[in-house]
Amino acid sequence: MDKKNKSRKKKQRLKIPKAGSSPGVVYIDENSLKPVITVHKINETTYETRELSNLNQITQLLADKNFTFWIEIKGFGSPELFETLNRELHVNRLILEDITRSYQRPKLEEYDDYVFAVSRMLLLDEDKNLENEQLSFILTDNALITLQENYSDCFGPVIQRLKVGKGNIRVAGSSYIMYALMDIIVDKYFEILSIWSEDLDLLEDRLFDKPDKSFMFDVQLIKRNLINIRRVAWPERDKLNDMLRSDSHLITEQTRPFIRDAYDHCIQIIDIVESLKEISASNIDMYLSIISNRMNEIMKVLTIISSIFIPLTFIAGVYGMNFAKEDPVTHKFMPYNMPELYASHGYLYTMVIMVIIAILQVIYFWRKGWFK
Amino acid sequence: MDKKNKSRKKKQRLKIPKAGSSPGVVYIDENSLKPVITVHKINETTYETRELSNLNQITQLLADKNFTFWIEIKGFGSPELFETLNRELHVNRLILEDITRSYQRPKLEEYDDYVFAVSRMLLLDEDKNLENEQLSFILTDNALITLQENYSDCFGPVIQRLKVGKGNIRVAGSSYIMYALMDIIVDKYFEILSIWSEDLDLLEDRLFDKPDKSFMFDVQLIKRNLINIRRVAWPERDKLNDMLRSDSHLITEQTRPFIRDAYDHCIQIIDIVESLKEISASNIDMYLSIISNRMNEIMKVLTIISSIFIPLTFIAGVYGMNFAKEDPVTHKFMPYNMPELYASHGYLYTMVIMVIIAILQVIYFWRKGWFK
Amino acid sequence: MDKKNKSRKKKQRLKIPKAGSSPGVVYIDENSLKPVITVHKINETTYETRELSNLNQITQLLADKNFTFWIEIKGFGSPELFETLNRELHVNRLILEDITRSYQRPKLEEYDDYVFAVSRMLLLDEDKNLENEQLSFILTDNALITLQENYSDCFGPVIQRLKVGKGNIRVAGSSYIMYALMDIIVDKYFEILSIWSEDLDLLEDRLFDKPDKSFMFDVQLIKRNLINIRRVAWPERDKLNDMLRSDSHLITEQTRPFIRDAYDHCIQIIDIVESLKEISASNIDMYLSIISNRMNEIMKVLTIISSIFIPLTFIAGVYGMNFAKEDPVTHKFMPYNMPELYASHGYLYTMVIMVIIAILQVIYFWRKGWFK
Amino acid sequence: MDKKNKSRKKKQRLKIPKAGSSPGVVYIDENSLKPVITVHKINETTYETRELSNLNQITQLLADKNFTFWIEIKGFGSPELFETLNRELHVNRLILEDITRSYQRPKLEEYDDYVFAVSRMLLLDEDKNLENEQLSFILTDNALITLQENYSDCFGPVIQRLKVGKGNIRVAGSSYIMYALMDIIVDKYFEILSIWSEDLDLLEDRLFDKPDKSFMFDVQLIKRNLINIRRVAWPERDKLNDMLRSDSHLITEQTRPFIRDAYDHCIQIIDIVESLKEISASNIDMYLSIISNRMNEIMKVLTIISSIFIPLTFIAGVYGMNFAKEDPVTHKFMPYNMPELYASHGYLYTMVIMVIIAILQVIYFWRKGWFK
Amino acid sequence: MDKKNKSRKKKQRLKIPKAGSSPGVVYIDENSLKPVITVHKINETTYETRELSNLNQITQLLADKNFTFWIEIKGFGSPELFETLNRELHVNRLILEDITRSYQRPKLEEYDDYVFAVSRMLLLDEDKNLENEQLSFILTDNALITLQENYSDCFGPVIQRLKVGKGNIRVAGSSYIMYALMDIIVDKYFEILSIWSEDLDLLEDRLFDKPDKSFMFDVQLIKRNLINIRRVAWPERDKLNDMLRSDSHLITEQTRPFIRDAYDHCIQIIDIVESLKEISASNIDMYLSIISNRMNEIMKVLTIISSIFIPLTFIAGVYGMNFAKEDPVTHKFMPYNMPELYASHGYLYTMVIMVIIAILQVIYFWRKGWFK
Repeated sequence: MDKKNKSRKKKQRLKIPKAGSSPGVVYIDENSLKPVITVHKINETTYETRELSNLNQITQLLADKNFTFWIEIKGFGSPELFETLNRELHVNRLILEDITRSYQRPKLEEYDDYVFAVSRMLLLDEDKNLENEQLSFILTDNALITLQENYSDCFGPVIQRLKVGKGNIRVAGSSYIMYALMDIIVDKYFEILSIWSEDLDLLEDRLFDKPDKSFMFDVQLIKRNLINIRRVAWPERDKLNDMLRSDSHLITEQTRPFIRDAYDHCIQIIDIVESLKEISASNIDMYLSIISNRMNEIMKVLTIISSIFIPLTFIAGVYGMNFAKEDPVTHKFMPYNMPELYASHGYLYTMVIMVIIAILQVIYFWRKGWFK
Repeated sequence: MDKKNKSRKKKQRLKIPKAGSSPGVVYIDENSLKPVITVHKINETTYETRELSNLNQITQLLADKNFTFWIEIKGFGSPELFETLNRELHVNRLILEDITRSYQRPKLEEYDDYVFAVSRMLLLDEDKNLENEQLSFILTDNALITLQENYSDCFGPVIQRLKVGKGNIRVAGSSYIMYALMDIIVDKYFEILSIWSEDLDLLEDRLFDKPDKSFMFDVQLIKRNLINIRRVAWPERDKLNDMLRSDSHLITEQTRPFIRDAYDHCIQIIDIVESLKEISASNIDMYLSIISNRMNEIMKVLTIISSIFIPLTFIAGVYGMNFAKEDPVTHKFMPYNMPELYASHGYLYTMVIMVIIAILQVIYFWRKGWFK
Repeated sequence: MDKKNKSRKKKQRLKIPKAGSSPGVVYIDENSLKPVITVHKINETTYETRELSNLNQITQLLADKNFTFWIEIKGFGSPELFETLNRELHVNRLILEDITRSYQRPKLEEYDDYVFAVSRMLLLDEDKNLENEQLSFILTDNALITLQENYSDCFGPVIQRLKVGKGNIRVAGSSYIMYALMDIIVDKYFEILSIWSEDLDLLEDRLFDKPDKSFMFDVQLIKRNLINIRRVAWPERDKLNDMLRSDSHLITEQTRPFIRDAYDHCIQIIDIVESLKEISASNIDMYLSIISNRMNEIMKVLTIISSIFIPLTFIAGVYGMNFAKEDPVTHKFMPYNMPELYASHGYLYTMVIMVIIAILQVIYFWRKGWFK
Repeated sequence: MDKKNKSRKKKQRLKIPKAGSSPGVVYIDENSLKPVITVHKINETTYETRELSNLNQITQLLADKNFTFWIEIKGFGSPELFETLNRELHVNRLILEDITRSYQRPKLEEYDDYVFAVSRMLLLDEDKNLENEQLSFILTDNALITLQENYSDCFGPVIQRLKVGKGNIRVAGSSYIMYALMDIIVDKYFEILSIWSEDLDLLEDRLFDKPDKSFMFDVQLIKRNLINIRRVAWPERDKLNDMLRSDSHLITEQTRPFIRDAYDHCIQIIDIVESLKEISASNIDMYLSIISNRMNEIMKVLTIISSIFIPLTFIAGVYGMNFAKEDPVTHKFMPYNMPELYASHGYLYTMVIMVIIAILQVIYFWRKGWFK
Repeated sequence: MDKKNKSRKKKQRLKIPKAGSSPGVVYIDENSLKPVITVHKINETTYETRELSNLNQITQLLADKNFTFWIEIKGFGSPELFETLNRELHVNRLILEDITRSYQRPKLEEYDDYVFAVSRMLLLDEDKNLENEQLSFILTDNALITLQENYSDCFGPVIQRLKVGKGNIRVAGSSYIMYALMDIIVDKYFEILSIWSEDLDLLEDRLFDKPDKSFMFDVQLIKRNLINIRRVAWPERDKLNDMLRSDSHLITEQTRPFIRDAYDHCIQIIDIVESLKEISASNIDMYLSIISNRMNEIMKVLTIISSIFIPLTFIAGVYGMNFAKEDPVTHKFMPYNMPELYASHGYLYTMVIMVIIAILQVIYFWRKGWFK
């Protein structure tokens, strides 16, 4: 296990929300990023974006019902931001808490004036670590406000489509833009899964060669990532289903077939995750059986060598013994009171017997299939 | 693990859809095959087929309500094809996307004018690799359009029945033909399962002989294939159930009992897959216990041989030691200051003791049941 | 693993239906048995049976509403039989296909004139192999037709009760006879489970003795059989539940409490199967832990013997070395330039040291609990 | 595994009902105990019990609506008993069969005149074997009849409360007494679970010491018992739920909150059983890892000793070789044609080298952490 | 496993309720703590607390509808307390039993005058042992009574908010205070989970180093704790859901969005617990594979050393044999009747052969990858 893997591992750890204080209180860290507010002003013929420094003018801005607005807020480092949302758009304090305590599962909450939704964006950083970021949506009749804690996103293709203006992205209203963002997020899951699927394939190839100890760590890392995706994909599916069955007028009829499409994608995600999990489990089984087999092989080598040579060494030891006798005539001690030692071809015979013993054992082990 | 297996393995890998761009866009690869369009024109007395070069005349063609049409489209290498479907038959763009991004799970979607359905065809190529191909259906009142990416299919028996004209295949309308195709696809699953079931039986026979390392790979390969079939069969079952309960007039009352029959078949498939999975799991358990037992046997051999000969070698070693003493008279060193060595039958006694030790050990191991 | 077991195993293999040709076609093998048709004519006071050669007169026969008829058909080797059923009793062709493709799961289908049901009879042959045979029921208002492919059945007790005429078996109509047959089939499951439960008990006893390699095969065989029963019992339960909730007038009110009773039995079967499966799994766990423990024991013997004697052999080896020096006076080589060899009690001391080393090791291993 | 455990084990075996003959037939064994009938006559102020020899007068007895009656029947050795129940109280024959074939799962059946219920009493005999006995209830408006096959019960506390007359046990009618008995039965489950929980704790303590082979047997025994309780507790829960939702007037409104209480207890039982099962599984995992670790330790000892002494023995062996040369002058064979043997400090150097080799190896193994 | 861990373990054991005597009887132990009663009197502008010695004046106290009361009762050592609750507030005796038999699962019971609820407080003592304490709630229109057996709680933040008076805690009535307490309890779960999550991370780091035997104990300890939390969190979720869907007027509309928030938190808890359980399971898998790998390594060392030196020792042994012959001239025994011994470079050649054998073996093992 090299250092790098170890650090990767660390980052994947489970985030657990801190116990909050009073409910409905926005939770802003001293490390929170300065908010960047981008307004996308969209109608059939035009698409323009500009940056806002705060949301004070938002009510006036949204009053122009000829346009659809997408207000993108990145970074939470400003309590006034949330105060404005509460004051101007009457966004419930509990929702503001949910937005800032960014451990929410994907969910949908419908209110009279707006719909609140949460998606979880999965991004891979350059070390293939999974970043799991919350994206909150506030949907009104002609506006979509998205809020996220950090600056990184995966909205490129949607903005591209807004610029180009093909399809119905400019004309289908705010709920369609919400769908488009949710869809791009779910599509991102496919991308990530396809990377891990390839990793898993590479791992599997290693099984056919000589998998070493790091194999298990690598499989478990993938398995952990799959668990993380599954934790996100299941409630995402429920959320999309809630959107399909929602009777809020804010989610337009025109958008619903597209939501169904995203819902189908989400089911495919879950499907793939489950399959990849089963494949990981299979690979672990395989690896363990490979270890066991390897053990058997090691033991076979030891047993064959020991079984052949230990008895032979014993024989050699016997004829290395020094039994002696006193010569009755000279009263000298004549060495080696062991008749075999003086047999004329004793040495030859002994060697032959040793070879025979060795051959018999080889035949025995061969028959047992130990040389395969 | 031989090369061939390795390549087979590779091909079985999970396909993960690429993240799409804008929704409702047909996804045509540069490698897409040139479309081949076959029209089957059917009524009670006649059955004729011909090839079309494009679908431009399709509205006119289908206007003849005296016939049932089955339009078979193979190969997607023509964007105009899909434009025509959209223009002439008003097929939703999201559906066209579903048709061309061929990773859909089996599903049923009902619209006012037509019904859209997806089945997944499983075919085995000559190396027993599972090909998993999507077949899309568009059902209108007097026509069935089927679309698939590649040329291979399993529709032979249906075309044969159309030619012969027995039964109600010519008279029961387009939804019956859709049923017949879905049924032949599900029947194909039986065929594939029966091949794997036999493979599993052969594997099981190997368990009674001497299973080697490739056993685990082979079982896992089957298990992987079973996972793939299950991924297809479950949503297929749901789709058939949706068709049964559908209130679309396009699925005729006459066809429903047959759909129920296909539904029953699909439940049997799932049943068999689950049973085969349990059998694979059992076989893996067996194999692992066989490895463990083999290990025990190897160790027994080593232990028996070592335990018998190591102590004997020690004894031989003792009497090979060179303790000596100085002769008080001659001041010469007389070798072997070890009384046993000069005992008159020392060597004999030693050998007898060694044999006794060996026999005692053999008896001990025998009693422990190690020779069984 | 002896031959017999191997052959038993083979027979237990999963049967997978062949992909059919056109739906609604009866599937008659050239090996199909000649049909034997027995008519049981039952009313409160009389019970008579006779054989029929064909079903041509069946409409006339059943016209006599004063009697309840049970028509028992064994063997499918006659296509006319099924034609007659279709022509005279209007039995749906899909049902005829279901009857003859004998891989149906237990199910209930209600039609206007009749009810179609499938049960699966489990029989043990003399080698304790599980025979899994389909019994199909066609229930009309005053008749029950049962169809099965082979001649063997388990209806003895029902026929006995019909002969004796006690209870309400003669007076409760055709649906009660159907219940009675289904109940005897389910009761048969108890009988079979009780045999396997005993087998499992015997296996468990072997765990306390010295289970050998065949243990695993034997447990897996039972487990496989349990899987087979479960595959039958679950849909049987659903079928009985469907019968309970059915609103067909053909299943009389009077019969329903009895069906509920059979339903309860079926739940007990499932309960027992699940328990036996858990017990098998426990036994496999036990067996694997026994193998591991055995391995530990083998290794302990090897380690104790080797650890004691290898160091001692080394010491003996040391004093068997031939280091020599040249006598400065005689210029002869005096053997054994090793002072210990000439110490007056060198041999004795050496032996004492060896004994001490051995004793220390024995104490060490004793303390580690290796002699237990 | 000692004898006693073995016998305990045997008794825990699964009972499987025998296939019955005709339905609705009471099943009385020749070993059935002689029935003992006790009548408890209860009203607000009085409580008296007496024995009956038969049930012939039961209709008259129960006619006195001023009292609540609890008729306790133990022992089934009298067919007339059941005939009387059928004749006098119109108890359905299928129920009589259920009462006497004592393998019913807990259930509730409502009829016009009475309610039939089954509980399963769990009792521990002096060897801690689980006795699983059926208690059947027949509840009418002013009477409760309980039937059980054997004499042992756990009703002491209820009878005590009837004697003392505190609370509403005397005034709340027959359904309250039924509740009280069911509650005492469920409470008994807690008692039994608490014994097993302690056993499991003791087992767990053994894990910290040196668990031997019997550990596995003991855990599995507990696991088996837990499976048995779970088989009883789940349907018991369903039964109590059925009672809660029952619309029978025989189960009084006043009693329902108490039934809800028993229902809560039953859920707690299931909860505890599942937790204990998870704990058993954990313990088995632990035990297996302990065996593996022990194996590692055994092998470490063997490997350390062998690795150190086998090379040293080889060196000693080398210098025990007898290579010789012929003296060119004397034509005598001078032993030991091996220069090291005549090096002046050859023996010393050799010993030093051996010690160095041994120390290096010890350092190597120390670094690998094998001495921990 | 050190002592401390052992004692920690003991405390985590499962508590199983004792079988109770008569239902509706409060269960007060002789060890019950003396009750401490604190009254919190709250309205928009004021917040005061005082201690009560008993509840006799409670009806009068609560009559003042201008205030919201939170009556906090800690310690159950006074039967009169419960008598007063029953007499003054008409609290059902079964509820009083539930309060005092403190093994209830979280639940909600609605009555006409009040709502009864149970939460389970999880607290960690200084040794990180999980204390699982029951908190019972009785909610009336203007009062909340909380009851707990011991003095320790986690209400600090709520009392703080009451003192400060910000937010709607003072004005939103008794059901809001109940929510606030339940929420703080659920938040506490997050805190505990985050501690265990860190422990699990530390354990995981040990996997990358050299995990020893205590690893398994430590993982199992965490797993056990997770099981305990899950046992609490699931019914807590159900309870909060019941509160959401409750139609009791005592749970005000204003409070419901907050309850939904707590419900979301509870789902997150369950989510995290399940993930941590999967991570523990992965870690156990890893650990077991590490043990197996370690075994392989140990065996490799043994096999390499033995395989190299045992054959060499054999060769040395052969040339240590004492085969001799009688000199035909002198009739003296000339030692070493083994031609190799007199070959001029016999010793050198032998040593060279030995080195070659050793090198070949090293190459063989190198190729097998045993040195990696």
